[in-house]
Amino acid sequence: MKARVHIFFKESVLDPQGSTVASSLQRLGFSKVKEVRMGKVIDLILDHQLPEEARKDVAKMCEKLLVNPVIESYRVELLEK
Amino acid sequence: MKARVHIFFKESVLDPQGSTVASSLQRLGFSKVKEVRMGKVIDLILDHQLPEEARKDVAKMCEKLLVNPVIESYRVELLEK
Repeated sequence: MKARVHIFFKESVLDPQGSTVASSLQRLGFSKVKEVRMGKVIDLILDHQLPEEARKDVAKMCEKLLVNPVIESYRVELLEK
Repeated sequence: MKARVHIFFKESVLDPQGSTVASSLQRLGFSKVKEVRMGKVIDLILDHQLPEEARKDVAKMCEKLLVNPVIESYRVELLEK
C-alpha cells in the first residue's frame, strides 16, 4: 500500500523559501505569480493490508517524526496498489 | 487561480533523505515501512484567467527555475479558485 503525506507550513507561519521563489519567478518575467508556498511530500510504501490500519500508523509517524506540529500542518492520502 | 506542482526525484535517482527517514521510522518501531521517497510541493497563487494559459506558464516556470530535469520529474495540477 502507498501513502502520501503533504506537509505545509501553517498559514500564519512565514515561508521565506516560498517568498524567494516568488520573487525569482517575477524577476524572470512571470509577473502573474502572486504568491508561492513551499511544502514537502513524503511517499511511503507500506506493508499494511488494511487501509484503516495504514492511516492510523501514518498519523502516528507524522506526530512522532515527520511533522513539526507547531509550525506545520499535514494531510494523509492513501493511494491504492 | 491556484496551481500545485509536485516534484520528485526520478525513480533511477537515489534519495538519501528518503532512505534516512525510512530507517528512522523502522527504528521507531514502524516495521511495516518498506520505502520512503521525499519530494517537494510548490503551491502557486496566480493571476491567470485561463486554465490553459496558467498550465503553459507553470510548465515554463518548472523548466526555467523550479525543476532540475536531469534528476527530477514533475506534475502540475490546477486547483480551482
